[in-house]
Amino acid sequence: MTGITSAGEKRLVVCSGRAYPQLAQEVARELHTEVLPTTAYDFANGEIYIRFQESVRGADAFVIQSHTAPINTWLMEQLIMVDALKRASAKRITVVAPFYPYARQDKKHQGREPISARLIADLFAAAGADRLMSVDLHTAQSQGFFDGPVDHLWAMPVLIDYVKTRVHGDLTMVSPDAGRIKVAERWANKLGGCPLAFVHKTRDITQPNVSVANRVVGDVKGRTCILVDDLIDTGGTIAEATKQLLKEGAKEVLVAATHGVFSPPAVQRLSECGAREVIVTDTLPITPDKQFPQLTILPIAPLLANAISAVFDDGSVTALFD
Amino acid sequence: MTGITSAGEKRLVVCSGRAYPQLAQEVARELHTEVLPTTAYDFANGEIYIRFQESVRGADAFVIQSHTAPINTWLMEQLIMVDALKRASAKRITVVAPFYPYARQDKKHQGREPISARLIADLFAAAGADRLMSVDLHTAQSQGFFDGPVDHLWAMPVLIDYVKTRVHGDLTMVSPDAGRIKVAERWANKLGGCPLAFVHKTRDITQPNVSVANRVVGDVKGRTCILVDDLIDTGGTIAEATKQLLKEGAKEVLVAATHGVFSPPAVQRLSECGAREVIVTDTLPITPDKQFPQLTILPIAPLLANAISAVFDDGSVTALFD
Amino acid sequence: MTGITSAGEKRLVVCSGRAYPQLAQEVARELHTEVLPTTAYDFANGEIYIRFQESVRGADAFVIQSHTAPINTWLMEQLIMVDALKRASAKRITVVAPFYPYARQDKKHQGREPISARLIADLFAAAGADRLMSVDLHTAQSQGFFDGPVDHLWAMPVLIDYVKTRVHGDLTMVSPDAGRIKVAERWANKLGGCPLAFVHKTRDITQPNVSVANRVVGDVKGRTCILVDDLIDTGGTIAEATKQLLKEGAKEVLVAATHGVFSPPAVQRLSECGAREVIVTDTLPITPDKQFPQLTILPIAPLLANAISAVFDDGSVTALFD
Amino acid sequence: MTGITSAGEKRLVVCSGRAYPQLAQEVARELHTEVLPTTAYDFANGEIYIRFQESVRGADAFVIQSHTAPINTWLMEQLIMVDALKRASAKRITVVAPFYPYARQDKKHQGREPISARLIADLFAAAGADRLMSVDLHTAQSQGFFDGPVDHLWAMPVLIDYVKTRVHGDLTMVSPDAGRIKVAERWANKLGGCPLAFVHKTRDITQPNVSVANRVVGDVKGRTCILVDDLIDTGGTIAEATKQLLKEGAKEVLVAATHGVFSPPAVQRLSECGAREVIVTDTLPITPDKQFPQLTILPIAPLLANAISAVFDDGSVTALFD
Amino acid sequence: MTGITSAGEKRLVVCSGRAYPQLAQEVARELHTEVLPTTAYDFANGEIYIRFQESVRGADAFVIQSHTAPINTWLMEQLIMVDALKRASAKRITVVAPFYPYARQDKKHQGREPISARLIADLFAAAGADRLMSVDLHTAQSQGFFDGPVDHLWAMPVLIDYVKTRVHGDLTMVSPDAGRIKVAERWANKLGGCPLAFVHKTRDITQPNVSVANRVVGDVKGRTCILVDDLIDTGGTIAEATKQLLKEGAKEVLVAATHGVFSPPAVQRLSECGAREVIVTDTLPITPDKQFPQLTILPIAPLLANAISAVFDDGSVTALFD
Amino acid sequence: MTGITSAGEKRLVVCSGRAYPQLAQEVARELHTEVLPTTAYDFANGEIYIRFQESVRGADAFVIQSHTAPINTWLMEQLIMVDALKRASAKRITVVAPFYPYARQDKKHQGREPISARLIADLFAAAGADRLMSVDLHTAQSQGFFDGPVDHLWAMPVLIDYVKTRVHGDLTMVSPDAGRIKVAERWANKLGGCPLAFVHKTRDITQPNVSVANRVVGDVKGRTCILVDDLIDTGGTIAEATKQLLKEGAKEVLVAATHGVFSPPAVQRLSECGAREVIVTDTLPITPDKQFPQLTILPIAPLLANAISAVFDDGSVTALFD
Repeated sequence: MTGITSAGEKRLVVCSGRAYPQLAQEVARELHTEVLPTTAYDFANGEIYIRFQESVRGADAFVIQSHTAPINTWLMEQLIMVDALKRASAKRITVVAPFYPYARQDKKHQGREPISARLIADLFAAAGADRLMSVDLHTAQSQGFFDGPVDHLWAMPVLIDYVKTRVHGDLTMVSPDAGRIKVAERWANKLGGCPLAFVHKTRDITQPNVSVANRVVGDVKGRTCILVDDLIDTGGTIAEATKQLLKEGAKEVLVAATHGVFSPPAVQRLSECGAREVIVTDTLPITPDKQFPQLTILPIAPLLANAISAVFDDGSVTALFD
Repeated sequence: MTGITSAGEKRLVVCSGRAYPQLAQEVARELHTEVLPTTAYDFANGEIYIRFQESVRGADAFVIQSHTAPINTWLMEQLIMVDALKRASAKRITVVAPFYPYARQDKKHQGREPISARLIADLFAAAGADRLMSVDLHTAQSQGFFDGPVDHLWAMPVLIDYVKTRVHGDLTMVSPDAGRIKVAERWANKLGGCPLAFVHKTRDITQPNVSVANRVVGDVKGRTCILVDDLIDTGGTIAEATKQLLKEGAKEVLVAATHGVFSPPAVQRLSECGAREVIVTDTLPITPDKQFPQLTILPIAPLLANAISAVFDDGSVTALFD
Repeated sequence: MTGITSAGEKRLVVCSGRAYPQLAQEVARELHTEVLPTTAYDFANGEIYIRFQESVRGADAFVIQSHTAPINTWLMEQLIMVDALKRASAKRITVVAPFYPYARQDKKHQGREPISARLIADLFAAAGADRLMSVDLHTAQSQGFFDGPVDHLWAMPVLIDYVKTRVHGDLTMVSPDAGRIKVAERWANKLGGCPLAFVHKTRDITQPNVSVANRVVGDVKGRTCILVDDLIDTGGTIAEATKQLLKEGAKEVLVAATHGVFSPPAVQRLSECGAREVIVTDTLPITPDKQFPQLTILPIAPLLANAISAVFDDGSVTALFD
Repeated sequence: MTGITSAGEKRLVVCSGRAYPQLAQEVARELHTEVLPTTAYDFANGEIYIRFQESVRGADAFVIQSHTAPINTWLMEQLIMVDALKRASAKRITVVAPFYPYARQDKKHQGREPISARLIADLFAAAGADRLMSVDLHTAQSQGFFDGPVDHLWAMPVLIDYVKTRVHGDLTMVSPDAGRIKVAERWANKLGGCPLAFVHKTRDITQPNVSVANRVVGDVKGRTCILVDDLIDTGGTIAEATKQLLKEGAKEVLVAATHGVFSPPAVQRLSECGAREVIVTDTLPITPDKQFPQLTILPIAPLLANAISAVFDDGSVTALFD
Repeated sequence: MTGITSAGEKRLVVCSGRAYPQLAQEVARELHTEVLPTTAYDFANGEIYIRFQESVRGADAFVIQSHTAPINTWLMEQLIMVDALKRASAKRITVVAPFYPYARQDKKHQGREPISARLIADLFAAAGADRLMSVDLHTAQSQGFFDGPVDHLWAMPVLIDYVKTRVHGDLTMVSPDAGRIKVAERWANKLGGCPLAFVHKTRDITQPNVSVANRVVGDVKGRTCILVDDLIDTGGTIAEATKQLLKEGAKEVLVAATHGVFSPPAVQRLSECGAREVIVTDTLPITPDKQFPQLTILPIAPLLANAISAVFDDGSVTALFD
Repeated sequence: MTGITSAGEKRLVVCSGRAYPQLAQEVARELHTEVLPTTAYDFANGEIYIRFQESVRGADAFVIQSHTAPINTWLMEQLIMVDALKRASAKRITVVAPFYPYARQDKKHQGREPISARLIADLFAAAGADRLMSVDLHTAQSQGFFDGPVDHLWAMPVLIDYVKTRVHGDLTMVSPDAGRIKVAERWANKLGGCPLAFVHKTRDITQPNVSVANRVVGDVKGRTCILVDDLIDTGGTIAEATKQLLKEGAKEVLVAATHGVFSPPAVQRLSECGAREVIVTDTLPITPDKQFPQLTILPIAPLLANAISAVFDDGSVTALFD
C-alpha cells in the first residue's frame, strides 16, 4: 500500500505545576525519569506564563499539580499547562490532582448554588484533558462529573502500612462523625477486625436541636483509638473528637487523614488536642509553618508513580489496591 | 428596521409516556390543561413508535415518564419522545423523571464498572433534553451529572403533612441504617424536634465481621416510630428494621418513603413486618398487585404540577420548599 | 529527550451482551481468543449491572450485542457496557450491532415523529462508542447518522454461497415488492445473470386504490424462485409472495434474508406458505420456538470475525466483499 | 425581584445569498416585508465578504440560498452568512436550502467515500444554524443528518395544482424508473386515482445484463402521461423515458419535477424529446439560457413564505400539506 | 391546541463578582436597577462559595467581573457564578469582562506555549456563558476565540470626550511604539485631523541591534502631545515615551489609555515622567495606592450600561459608536 | 489476559486535492512515497465526488490542498476528503493548507460581519480534522481559532537562503507599510543586521487625511532594497512601494513574499514596477499566465515534507526553524 510505515512507540512525560514541584520530582524519580523542563512565571499583573522546553509531540503526558493555596491560581496554571500540551500535539493528557479542588461543593444544598466540583471537571475537559487521576475524592460520585476515565486512588494502604508499625495492643477505629463510619469500617477490616466507634458532634442524637457536648458511641476506654477522615481542613472536628475520646478514657489517639489542608488554626488545634500522632500524606505540600511535633507526613509519590506507570503500560490501577 | 415583529408568547405542553399515564393526567389536571394527544405503540419486535398529534413548535414541553418495570423500555420511550420533540421544534424540553432511573449506580465501587446514573443524564442530553426534573435523588451529587438545570424536588413536605394527621403522642424518627440519619434528622426538625434513632443492620458496630441481630440506637420504647428512607425496593431493610423496633418495645411503627419500587417480595415483607402503616408517593405506579392493607399512597402530581408551573412562569422552585 | 519510551502494542478484546452470548463466543472462537469475562445481571427493579473482570485499559474493544426482544433492554445493556469501557480507559470502542435497532424508523413520515435510527446512533456516541459495525442496514443512508466510521457488512456472500449448493436448473430472483428490486438484481448478477421478477402487493399497479390479489411481474413459470429481502419480521409479505409465485406456476420457492426477526405469527406463516426452504443468518438468535422444518440458519460469526480482524489490523473491510 | 422586566417580542428577518436574490425577494414580498439589506462581494482572490446593514440582534433569521452552479461558492456564502448572524446575536438561524446541496451523496456506495449530504448538515451546524428548511430531499433519510429540526417541504401540491389546469382526458402517472414508483403513486392518489406506469431503463427486467431498449410497464397507449421525478439534472433519463412513452403510443407527455438543475445538455434533450410541457419550480434559478419553449416554471416562493411564516408563528408546517 | 399559553416576558439581572463591586453597582444604577443580591465568600482553603439570593430562572443575566489582581481568583469566581446561573435556569448568560484576562497571550510565539486568551474563551463557554462583552481587546482577533457573539466596546469616545475639555491649541497624537500607529490615527481622525507622531523604542529603525535612545518621528516641538495605548501595565513604555517627547520639545504630554493595570512600579514611573495628566477608565479598579496627582479616572459604567441595555433590548451595540 | 495482542505500527499517507496536485506529489517525493491514489471529479452540477482507492484505516493522513481560485471549490473538496477519511477510519487527519483560506478576515471590523478565518477552522473541525498545518498565517492569532494543534510554518528561511545568493553589497530591508515593520526586522536580524526602512502609503503620517505621495522612511539611496510581505494579492501596495524606493534613489529592489496570490492586475503591476526580481514560494500554484520575467518561484514542498515527517515521527516542528 502507498505510504510510509514505521513502528509505533510511546513516550511518557511528567509535567509539574509550581504549587509543589517536589511532589512531581519524587514521582519522576520513582519512575526513573525527570520532570519535563518547563518555563513558568507570573507576569506583573498576575497572569501566568508557561512553556515546555522540549517537544511533547505524541507524548502521554501527566500534569501534576497540588491544589493548595492560592488554589485558584494553581488551578489556572494547570489548565494553561493542559492547553499548551494540547496545542503541542501531546497524544494523551492526564490531569493529576492528588487533592481534587472544590471537591466538597459536589451538589446544590440550596437553589442557585453552583456545583463547583462538576465545573472543575468541565474546565479540565475544556482545556483538553483526556483523563483525571486523583486521591480519595470527598464523595466517590464526583468521578461521574468527568466524561472520561478517572483513576481514583486510595491512600488507605499507605496510611495503614505506617499505622501498623506505630500501634500495639487494643485498637479501636473511630469516625469523627456519623457520616464517615464506612471509612472507619474499611480500616477496621484491613486491620484484622478491630472494634469501631464514632463521635457525635454538636447535638445529642436522641434530642435534636439541643446542643450538648460530643458523645462517643462504642467502646474506647483504655484503648488506642485511630481517628480517620479524608481531609483535615481547619481541624475543628478532629480536635474535638480527640478530646472527647481522651475524656472518655481512651488510652491514646492517633489521627490519620489523606489530605492535610491545614487551614488556620489547624496547627494550633491539632498540636494541642492531645493526639499522640497526626498522620497525613503529602497530596498537599505541608510547609514548615504547617508542621508540629506530633505530625507525620507520608509520601504519596510512590502511589502516584505506580498508578501513572500502570496507566502508561495499560496495566490495571485497580490491581494496586488488591 | 426591516423584518416582521410580533409579540412573543409561550406555551406549556405536558407529554406523557405509557408507563404511568394517570400521573401525567393528574399533573395536567392540576395545571388545568390536558396531556398532549400522542400516538404510541410497540412494533411486533418491540421497537417503540411515537407521534404527537398536535404541533409542539415553540412549546415548553414537559415529558413525564415513570421509570417502573420494564424500566429500560420506558427509558427508551422517553428518549424517543424527546427526540421527536426536538425535531418538531419544541423550544425547551424538560425530562420529568420522578424516580430517576439507575440512580443507585452513581459511582464506581470497583474498576471497570459503569456510572450508569451519569450515562442516563448523557442519554437524555443526547436525545435533546434541556432540563431535568426529579424527586428525591438517591444522592444529591447526581444533579451534577447533567450539564444543565436540574429541578430537584423533595417529597418530604407531602409525606409529613400526611403523617402529622396520623400520629399522636410521643414520636421518634428512625433511620433504617447509619447512612440515612440526616434524612431522619430533617424530618425530626420539621416535626418540631422529636427524638432520633437508627437501626444497625447485619453487624455489631463495635465488633465488625461478627454478624449479629439488628440493634436499635436511641430511645424507642413505648413510642410511635416513623421509619424514613428514599425508596423501598425489595423491602428487606425496612421490614427487618420494623421488626427490631417492635421487638425493642416501640408502640407502633409507621414507614414513610418517597419511591415505592416494591420489587418482590416487598409486598409480603411489608405487609407482614408489623408496621401499622406504610406510606409512599406514586412517583412509580403502585399497581393493585403491589398494594396491601397497610399501604397508603400519596399523590405526587400536585408537587410536580407546582414545580412545572414555577418553571414555566420563571418562578422559584426552591420557594416551594420554604 | 526527557521521559520514558516503550514500544506501542495493541490488544483486541471481544465483549458480549447477554442477548445472544453464543454469537460473541463464536466470533471469539473464529478469532482464536475468548470473550472478555464479564459480570452482568439485573437488579430487582430491572436495572442492569455490568462489570468487566479484567483490565481493558488501552484495549481495542468490540462490544457485540444482538438486538432481539426485549430490544430496549439489550440496547440499554450495550450502552452501559460502552460506558463502562470508556471509564475503564479502553482506547477504542466499536459497537457491533449485527441487526441495527430501530433501523426502519430512519425518517419522518409525518410531522412530530422521531427519527429513532438517528437517535440510536446518538445514544451510542453519547455512551462513548467510537465506531459502529452492522450488517445489512435497512437503508444505507443510516450510515450517515453516526458521526464516525461505520463498517457496513453484507450478508449476501454468505447467503449466496449456501443457496448455490441448494439449487439447480432454471433460477429466477424475486423481490417481494417493487422497492427491493435492486437487491434482487445484485443477487442475480452474483448468480451469473439469472432473470428477475417481483411481486406487487395489495393493488394493481395500473389501478391505484383498487385492492386486488398480488401479481407477479416477470417469468416464474416452472422455475426455481429465490425470494430475497433484508429482514423477515412477521412474515406477511414474504408468505404472500411465496404463495403467489407458486400460484403462478413457480416450480419451487426459496426465501433468503439476512435478519430473522420472526415476530409472531412469522413461524406459522413461513412454515405454511409453501416455501421449500427459508434461509436466514443468525444476526438475531433464532430460539427453538422460532424454528420450523423449512428453516436453515447460517452463522454470521465468521463474517463478523473477519471484519473485526480487519479493523484491528487496519486492513480493508471493503476487500472482504470483492 | 431585582432586575428590569420588559415584554418579550420577536422579529423575523429574511436574508438572501447572491445565488438567486429574486427568490428571497419574492419570499419577502409574500411575507409583506423586505430582504435584509446586505453587503456582499468577492475579493480579488475569490474570498467572499458579507455584512448585514441592520442589526439582527435577537432576530429569527431565515437565510435563503439557492444551490445552483457554482454550487460550492454559494454554499460557502451561506455558511459565512450564518457565521455573521451567529456573531451578531441572532436568536435563531434557519438555513433555507430549497435544493439541498450534495443530497444525492447520502450514503457510501463503496469503501472510502464521503457521505457529503451529512457533511453539509455538519457544516451548517458548525457555522451556527439552528434549523434547516428544504424542499423535496432526494431521500427523506437525509433529514436525520441534521441534529435539530428540519422542515421538509413538498412541492407536489404546487405542481399538481398547475398540472390539473393543463390536462384533460385519460391520465397516466409515469415514473422514469423502478425506484420512483412511490412518488408517482402519491401523485396518482392526489389526482383522483389515475393509472400508473413506469419505464425500465437500460435493461430488460427479466434478462439482467442484456441491455435492451427502454420498456414501459403499464397502460399508456392513447393516454396523457405525466412523468414525475424529484430533480432533472442532465435530462437523460427523462428524455429517454418521454421518447419511449411516445413510441409506445402515449397521446402526449408532460414532465413534472421539483428541481430544475438543467446541467448541459439538459436543455437540448428536454426541448427535443417530444414532451409537450416540462414543469419545474424555481428552487434553483432557471436562467434564460436554460429556458426552452416547452418549459413552465412555477414559483416556489409562496410555499417557502408559508412555511417560514408558520415557523415564526409556531404554527404547523405539516398542516400546509394536509 | 392543548396546553397553556401566556405572554412571554424578559428580565435583565446584573450580577457582580467581588473584584470591583462598585463597577457593577454603577452599571446597575445607570440601568435604574440594583445588583442581584449574592452571597459570596472564601472557604478557609481559598475555595470560593457563591449563591444568588433571588431566583434567576429565565433571566437575561450579565455577570460583571473586573480582572484585577489576584486575577486567577476573580476569573474562577466569575466561572463559578456562570455555573450557578446555568444550573439555576438563567435563559442567557453574558460574561462582562471589561478587561479581558490573558488577552496578551493570544498566539504562540514559540513552540509549546499555550494560547491562553483562547483558553479563557473556552473556559467561559464550558461554564455556560452564551455571550461575552469586553472593552478594547488587545487584538481584535481575540473575538474569534469565542464561538458566539462578542460585544467589543471601545472606550475611545469616553476618553476623547474628556480629553477635548482638557486641551487647547496645537495637538499631536502620539503612539508609544510603531505597532500602535493605527490607534493614534483613529484618535486623530476623531479630533478633527491633528498630526501624528510615534516613538521608536530601544533601537534605531535604520540600524537594527544598535540600541540607541528613543526617537520621536513626527512634529512635536511646542505642541500638546496625547500619547495613547490600550493598556498601561508597569508603565515603562509610556514613561519613556513621555520623557522623550518632552526632551524633543513637546509643550506638554497627556497620556490616555483604556485599562489602568498599574503593576508596580507604574505609579512611580507615571507620576515622575513629566506627563501633565494620565487618563484611564476604571475597567479595572484603581485603588488609592495606585492613584497619583496627575491621574484622572473616567467611569466606564455608562458605556457598559448602554451596551447591556442595547443587548437586552435587541438594539444595536455598534450604533453606540457611530 | 483475554484478547489478542499485536505490535502497534503506524502509516503515513499523503492525500491531495485537485487544486495543485504537483505540490502534493513533490511533498510525497521528498518523503520517498507517493500520493494516495484518489478518484476525484465533478458532477454535472458542480458537486464534487471523492474516493480513495486504497485503505486508509488506521492511517496518519495529511490532506494537502492549495487554496487558489476557485477558492471555495477547493475548500469544499478538502472538507469532503476529510469527511471520507474520517468515515474510512483514518487514525489522525491533518489538514495541510499552505495558504490558509480567508486568513485576512480574522476579526470584525464592523458590526454584523463574519469572522471567516474562525469559520474555516470550525468547518475543518466539523468535517473531522484533528490538526492543521499552514505557512505564514496573516496574523498569528488565527492559530487560536482551531481547537487543537496547529503547525505554523515560516517560509522565511526558504526565502532568505535564496535571497542571500542573489544580493551583494549594501542591503536595506523594507516593509511596504508601517504595520509590517516587524517582519522586515526579523529578516534584517537573519541577514546579519542590515538597516531597515518602510514606506508610508496614501497619507503623510504627520498630516492625516491629506493624501500625498508615498514616502520612504529610512536610508535607501544607492542601496539594494528587499521589500518583504506575507502575501501579494493584486500587487498594488508592493508596486507602489517599489516605484517609490527607486524614485528615492534605491540601487535596485527585490520583492520577497510567501504567498503569490497574484490576482489581476498583479502580473502587469509587478512586471512593470521596476523590481529586479520578485520571489515567492509556491504555496499557491503560479500558473503560466501568472508568470513574468522577473518572477522566481521557490518550492515550498521541502519545508512541508520536513514538517510532515516531524509530525509523523513525533519530532519537533519548531526545531526546523532554529
